[in-house]
Amino acid sequence: MDVGRILTQGGAALRGVLCHAGGSYGAVGVVAHAKCAEQERLAVVNAAEALRGAGLQCPVVSVGSTPTAHAAQDLTGVTEMRAGVYVFFDLVMAGIEVCCIDDIALSVLTTVIGHQSTRGWIICDAGWMAMSRDRGTAAQDVDQGYGIVCDSAGVPIPGLIMVQANQEHGVIARRPDFKGAVPAIPVGTQLRILPNHACATAAQHSGYHVIPEKPEATLMNWPRFGGW
Amino acid sequence: MDVGRILTQGGAALRGVLCHAGGSYGAVGVVAHAKCAEQERLAVVNAAEALRGAGLQCPVVSVGSTPTAHAAQDLTGVTEMRAGVYVFFDLVMAGIEVCCIDDIALSVLTTVIGHQSTRGWIICDAGWMAMSRDRGTAAQDVDQGYGIVCDSAGVPIPGLIMVQANQEHGVIARRPDFKGAVPAIPVGTQLRILPNHACATAAQHSGYHVIPEKPEATLMNWPRFGGW
Repeated sequence: MDVGRILTQGGAALRGVLCHAGGSYGAVGVVAHAKCAEQERLAVVNAAEALRGAGLQCPVVSVGSTPTAHAAQDLTGVTEMRAGVYVFFDLVMAGIEVCCIDDIALSVLTTVIGHQSTRGWIICDAGWMAMSRDRGTAAQDVDQGYGIVCDSAGVPIPGLIMVQANQEHGVIARRPDFKGAVPAIPVGTQLRILPNHACATAAQHSGYHVIPEKPEATLMNWPRFGGW
Repeated sequence: MDVGRILTQGGAALRGVLCHAGGSYGAVGVVAHAKCAEQERLAVVNAAEALRGAGLQCPVVSVGSTPTAHAAQDLTGVTEMRAGVYVFFDLVMAGIEVCCIDDIALSVLTTVIGHQSTRGWIICDAGWMAMSRDRGTAAQDVDQGYGIVCDSAGVPIPGLIMVQANQEHGVIARRPDFKGAVPAIPVGTQLRILPNHACATAAQHSGYHVIPEKPEATLMNWPRFGGW
């Protein structure tokens, strides 16, 4: 069966073409991402034109990766843009300059449960079961470990990252190159950890605790969609 | 406040002592695991005795890691054994000879969705979102990648592992050292992947599809407990 017959008589309706510019994750900055976005656009638009030239309908022309969605200059011929983790952002995206650390809207709330002071370790009750095992910043210029440590209001504490994670415990310590002072963080202190990869971390949880804009308003719980 | 006063007047009830012989995961075979189990037992029993010697009740004396739970020869003084992933087992446990591959009762059902024949790749629809990113066999003698590939009945296919995983796609290919023949596996074929770490993989799913002993019986769905 030739390709044309598969597409017209194969038992499924041809809806269009879709791609994901995964390579854009390896590029840094808006100029590089804009180039990736144009490559992505040309790939799908040319594929759609080839199909149309062969007499096939191709209504959907879909592109999308978080970096290209934010950097694209021209979307001629594109009918759908999948904007990735834009609703949360994460440290991987901050590491390639798609967002700033301050834009990251997802964190894991955790409590300090112990110290190993000879090792400079602060132990908390969020391990990889809470953070995921995603180490997406490991290959970037700044390795954020299992995440950046913030106070309970979400303000990063200079020099502290989650350097290791067990199943249910995280180890918080200084970044290897940090020379500054680190505050004392007693047992019982609540901290927030900004994740490497919002998709992976969110999938470890059944819902979101949504912090209202007005402090006196009620914390909301939004259940997550999950599964296959 | 001295330790005795913390334990008696600290606002919490002292229930006992607990440990986890995490080091046993680095030991191979029942003899080595039995030694780890005895170390684990002595650690908690001696701690309990020290507390009792100081006049404190210590009703619970708890031990448990999957390897030591299965190899312990003597549990004198222990009141609780936490038997780990014994209900499922996994490739990490098989790699240190706690179980055989055939004992593993948890798998991820997946479907072949494509091939990249020049690379020797079979693409399936289970990525790390389905398997977890646990690479617990990476440091063992046999690295199982993201898992051993089985047919839909759960029988391993010689030479095939999941060598890479993207978020929603797995890449199945030969083990690096495998020289034998690999069967053709067409698009649409269902496969089962045995996981590195049952805890991590199960946590990616909201329930278990339980296969009944009699093939004509109904598939059951057992929801999972999750969260904190």
